[in-house]
Amino acid sequence: MEALSLGQYSFVQNGYSFGFAVMAAATLFFWLMKSEIAPSYRLAITITGLVTAVAAYHYLQIMLSWNAAADVTTGEVLATGKPFNQAYRYVDWLLTVPLLLIELILVMRLSKAETIKKSTVLGGAAALMIVLGYPGEVSDIGGLRFVFWVLSMIPFVFIVYQLVVGLKESISKQPESVQNLVQISIYLVIGSWLFYPIVYLFPLVGLDGGAAITAVEIGYTVADIVAKAVFGVFIFVIAMRKSQAESEEANGATATLADDDAEGEETSKLS
Amino acid sequence: MEALSLGQYSFVQNGYSFGFAVMAAATLFFWLMKSEIAPSYRLAITITGLVTAVAAYHYLQIMLSWNAAADVTTGEVLATGKPFNQAYRYVDWLLTVPLLLIELILVMRLSKAETIKKSTVLGGAAALMIVLGYPGEVSDIGGLRFVFWVLSMIPFVFIVYQLVVGLKESISKQPESVQNLVQISIYLVIGSWLFYPIVYLFPLVGLDGGAAITAVEIGYTVADIVAKAVFGVFIFVIAMRKSQAESEEANGATATLADDDAEGEETSKLS
Repeated sequence: MEALSLGQYSFVQNGYSFGFAVMAAATLFFWLMKSEIAPSYRLAITITGLVTAVAAYHYLQIMLSWNAAADVTTGEVLATGKPFNQAYRYVDWLLTVPLLLIELILVMRLSKAETIKKSTVLGGAAALMIVLGYPGEVSDIGGLRFVFWVLSMIPFVFIVYQLVVGLKESISKQPESVQNLVQISIYLVIGSWLFYPIVYLFPLVGLDGGAAITAVEIGYTVADIVAKAVFGVFIFVIAMRKSQAESEEANGATATLADDDAEGEETSKLS
Repeated sequence: MEALSLGQYSFVQNGYSFGFAVMAAATLFFWLMKSEIAPSYRLAITITGLVTAVAAYHYLQIMLSWNAAADVTTGEVLATGKPFNQAYRYVDWLLTVPLLLIELILVMRLSKAETIKKSTVLGGAAALMIVLGYPGEVSDIGGLRFVFWVLSMIPFVFIVYQLVVGLKESISKQPESVQNLVQISIYLVIGSWLFYPIVYLFPLVGLDGGAAITAVEIGYTVADIVAKAVFGVFIFVIAMRKSQAESEEANGATATLADDDAEGEETSKLS
């Protein structure tokens, strides 16, 4: 903690506050807009908001822990002795990472059997990945850190493989208006996730000064915002477009059935 | 901090409290009234409330930071050593300024392609403007402050130009009952925004005593209230009037089709 300059300390603190504000705002947005989306996608949007809500809580806790760990009244960063609690990030990921994979699966609206299977497999692998990473994170022995990094990378690589290859066929079955968005969402998950295993190795290669701590904390915050809030907005737009497409389809079907445009319009407004 | 008289210190503090109350009240108003507005404008109103919600959170943080920075128990303003966190304003603007431009674009209900294009361009320029302003704000070197002021003014001028010229054609396509309101909303944004770059230059011309700090903080608070809460009310009124106009139109159309006023009214209520 004392390796940090006052500027670095404040920058990280403002990053946490920004993280909290983004996650809380995203949560409110998803839940307020839920009613504007077709019922079939409301579970996905509820969970999308749950992910950012859990993250908002943890960013608040991380910010309070960061504040309590240092005294800056002298114009310098002095450790108070209270340890900065790194574990909040792991507790957060243990909850949010499986859920954010599930929200992606839900918004794709696969068959019931496939949804359950993919949610269990990907969600389980994600939880395993986090659990295997933690012992290495809190260990002071470089060798142990590396061993758990390798163990944690096994489910990581499996998830990435499943997202890239396993979901390929399902993407082609999505309505054309959202195929690109689903593809971008998947890249967003993978892209933001790549940051974590790299940062995990920083202490092994001797990066632990003030600049390294600042880079790690700001990097985690940005990666979390992309993986949860920005990703969530993509899930929301996909759900919105699929709702509209389905309501237009229902509209068309009713109009043909009843041969009456006015009635068709009414149906589409209700749906 | 110690340049302030007790009266000035309290005045600024009460200003923050007023800012928080206005932003929180505006948020509740927008979200409570959301359901009374036609579905097409609910996204705009949700975001309008999001802007004031994020601002309310930051006014609370600014107020707490202001309280922690000074001890007034002796009847004088004594610095406690805890720095007053100016960055909260920037963190707030980084989130809210792009969003408030997007809420204006959304309430105009342009074509989908135009909405996405204008939101990306104006939102992106707004974020760039804030990011470029921050390094100058925290720098003690006058020259750097000026350089970043100039850099930040480039997206600022671009946004103002886009609002005045780029949206001119779109305004003429709005229903007559709201054309004036849209025009006033745009002037409100530009008018309240002009305050920020002027204040930014205060330290360069030697204004940094208690009176200057008071003027800056109260000025920022008033400008924020105008740009977010008052502007939001205009967005709300526009959405309300457009909802009514569209429901009357739908009413008329159905009435002609079905030659039955009662049925038409029912449809308009559903929409």
